[in-house]
Amino acid sequence: MKKIFKILLSEDEMPRQWYNIVADMPNKPMPPLDPRTMKPIGPESLSAIFPMELIKQEVSQERYIDIPEEVLDLYKTYRPSPMHRAYNLEKALGTKCKIYYKYEGGNYSGSHKANTAIPQAYYNKMEGVKRITTETGAGQWGSAMSFACNYFGLELLVFMVKVSYDQKPGRKLMMNTYNAKVIPSPSNLTEAGRNILKNNPDSPGSLGIAISEAIEMAVKDPYTKYSLGSVLNHVLLHQTIIGQEAILQMEKAGDYPDVVIGCFGGGSNFSGIAFPFLRENLVNGKKTRLLTIEPSSCPKLSRGKFMYDFGDTAGMTPLLPMYTLGHNFIPEKIHAGGLRYHGAGVLPSQLLKDGLIEVKAKMQKECFGAGVTFARSEGIIPAPESTYAIAGVFDEARQADKEGISKTILFNLSGHGHLDLTAYEKYFENNLPDHELTCAEIEDALSKIELPV
Amino acid sequence: MKKIFKILLSEDEMPRQWYNIVADMPNKPMPPLDPRTMKPIGPESLSAIFPMELIKQEVSQERYIDIPEEVLDLYKTYRPSPMHRAYNLEKALGTKCKIYYKYEGGNYSGSHKANTAIPQAYYNKMEGVKRITTETGAGQWGSAMSFACNYFGLELLVFMVKVSYDQKPGRKLMMNTYNAKVIPSPSNLTEAGRNILKNNPDSPGSLGIAISEAIEMAVKDPYTKYSLGSVLNHVLLHQTIIGQEAILQMEKAGDYPDVVIGCFGGGSNFSGIAFPFLRENLVNGKKTRLLTIEPSSCPKLSRGKFMYDFGDTAGMTPLLPMYTLGHNFIPEKIHAGGLRYHGAGVLPSQLLKDGLIEVKAKMQKECFGAGVTFARSEGIIPAPESTYAIAGVFDEARQADKEGISKTILFNLSGHGHLDLTAYEKYFENNLPDHELTCAEIEDALSKIELPV
Repeated sequence: MKKIFKILLSEDEMPRQWYNIVADMPNKPMPPLDPRTMKPIGPESLSAIFPMELIKQEVSQERYIDIPEEVLDLYKTYRPSPMHRAYNLEKALGTKCKIYYKYEGGNYSGSHKANTAIPQAYYNKMEGVKRITTETGAGQWGSAMSFACNYFGLELLVFMVKVSYDQKPGRKLMMNTYNAKVIPSPSNLTEAGRNILKNNPDSPGSLGIAISEAIEMAVKDPYTKYSLGSVLNHVLLHQTIIGQEAILQMEKAGDYPDVVIGCFGGGSNFSGIAFPFLRENLVNGKKTRLLTIEPSSCPKLSRGKFMYDFGDTAGMTPLLPMYTLGHNFIPEKIHAGGLRYHGAGVLPSQLLKDGLIEVKAKMQKECFGAGVTFARSEGIIPAPESTYAIAGVFDEARQADKEGISKTILFNLSGHGHLDLTAYEKYFENNLPDHELTCAEIEDALSKIELPV
Repeated sequence: MKKIFKILLSEDEMPRQWYNIVADMPNKPMPPLDPRTMKPIGPESLSAIFPMELIKQEVSQERYIDIPEEVLDLYKTYRPSPMHRAYNLEKALGTKCKIYYKYEGGNYSGSHKANTAIPQAYYNKMEGVKRITTETGAGQWGSAMSFACNYFGLELLVFMVKVSYDQKPGRKLMMNTYNAKVIPSPSNLTEAGRNILKNNPDSPGSLGIAISEAIEMAVKDPYTKYSLGSVLNHVLLHQTIIGQEAILQMEKAGDYPDVVIGCFGGGSNFSGIAFPFLRENLVNGKKTRLLTIEPSSCPKLSRGKFMYDFGDTAGMTPLLPMYTLGHNFIPEKIHAGGLRYHGAGVLPSQLLKDGLIEVKAKMQKECFGAGVTFARSEGIIPAPESTYAIAGVFDEARQADKEGISKTILFNLSGHGHLDLTAYEKYFENNLPDHELTCAEIEDALSKIELPV
């Protein structure tokens, strides 16, 4: 039989709508709460930090939302993204499973983050915003937003988690090349940052802290808004372009996935590929398993608590109903900086609670090992974050082989690792510590959660 | 009119043959000479360093050469490569010209070098070779060869030009990830390296020196062969897949280029895109200009001498008829490491001599400036080498606008700059020296050429 290596879509075949899972969720997500009143907040109270169109998307119940023409045009510079059949990886694993991956690292930012950076910058521009602040972990989101803001003529200030700022110097340079200003976080620019530094001058930072700093800077100025790279409903919505394309591509391949896999930080790349397939489960009776992989050092989905918590460390966001390790939790300095977030998006949290998606935690050494096997067979060096998805794929394939069955596995290769090569160096030097939280550490983290009431 | 951003080919549309320009050259290239006898060498004398199939390609007069199935299969993991219409760049330049680019940086190695790495590793494997030695400048060729060798089960030893080894640490790590061993050159491993270090312990190295080292290591062992990433006929042949695809893509776009542009080190990415269009000029009466851009600090085509010279510094290769600055010439430490080569391939040398291609030299600051404009409009951060092509495109567009005409410009974006970001940092710091050789320096370089007779 003829091998087809890449399943491509033409620009004409690119979906023109994002898919909103809220429309099809059996249990709708619980509302965000105002921490001062503990009452549901209205959309208007988010207007200090987000443009109205994104707030509308955040609370929308519509099944499909049109992608603006200007966004489609910029998407078309790199989308539709290719789907690959991983023949060489299958051979390297000696598996009878069919492995496909959707490659989201082929665009300028090197990851899926471009998919939401473009519409976020666009809607801000349309509403007269002049400057955006944001956080970034490993730098993928910051890179994506840098290009998008520069393209639409917006200034961008990026708070980059300090440990990643030190680990991944190339990312700062990339953001500078796209005309953005980058500050290591925690910084002295904000009260949130100064408070952290007062207690811990050597703080490695975290996404939670960087978010606090970025929000604090945004609320000070009416022409500045804040932008988030994951977690929120509208961000996950924008990422569904991945899964929408993937469904068309699986159809072209004459196949359908038994399991869809993505790594988990705040939930955006996993949700992006998984939600459209989940719709097919919920609406069309398909039975695809949706599996997300998180780091054992930051296992909010598998070992955290489902509760209302802040999205940031300083408590500047509304309270969100989510799986969390506590907004004060500072994850270990793993190289997958994008997965170092204490909480999970509201939508995947609710879906996990309802048993509609699955989660598994993995340690970084095994993940990098899987990443190296992938690089040497498929050629692409994966982002550290993406190696978690790959390690999950290996487990699934081995389990299927053990059971003597052949599964069709699809995963989201969320980004490349060109700017993370020192992490691979440490792997080869056997210098990548594994971290698995003890029960006591988990209990301790959860006990430290301080909520206003 | 509807904008088409990317012109894609399906796997089925991918050309299955390489194009050999020799068949259509009005003046055939002069033969390589044995430096001991100054007589043309026979193919057999190359058999110590190359497998027979590549030697056959090196001397072939056939117009088309079939691409082996195994090579096609590996090509299909990343080819056909996309052609982009650079709408955003056109807007940024305010030009009336139509600008297209063929993007060769989307594959694992990040550059066009994969196109020849794969067949070279394949033919070596088929002929029982166990180990390959090679040189690399900026590391793109070394990365490409690392993956290809690992894929076909060959060991690889890479001599990496010292200045690039220091400037681009990520490239070494990338090669290691693909399982190759990397040595900074000049090294103490070879007589050629030791001779250089004796006279100049701080030598920044050059491609010419690294080639000498790699050849010296290869000839010592019957199971080791040597592999070159540019210059030679068979290398340029493999790169013609770029232009072969580009012709089909321009056809799909309903357009045809007035000028085709590529940067020049040894000649492989330029020849790869230009030769098939040159065939259309020679055979089908088309009139596309073929323009290559070289650095002012290493201007062999525009200011060197057409003569027989060695391809390497130590004089281990046959004598080749080419434009050269002398095999002892050590170019300035520009960041476009891949362009730091004293000579030009035999085929582009002959074609330039015959007036069938054009050349222009440019300085690095202007080129990086063009690269930044490109990055901020099209998103892709170009390899330092590719910025020379982009600067050439800007000139062409401005000239056409001045003349009040609209040209169709196609250029080869040979690779991405993810591992060259420190060069961009230096650009922003205004810390990129420009080098243009004086007439005295050129005369001095040429006067130092020592040939055996």
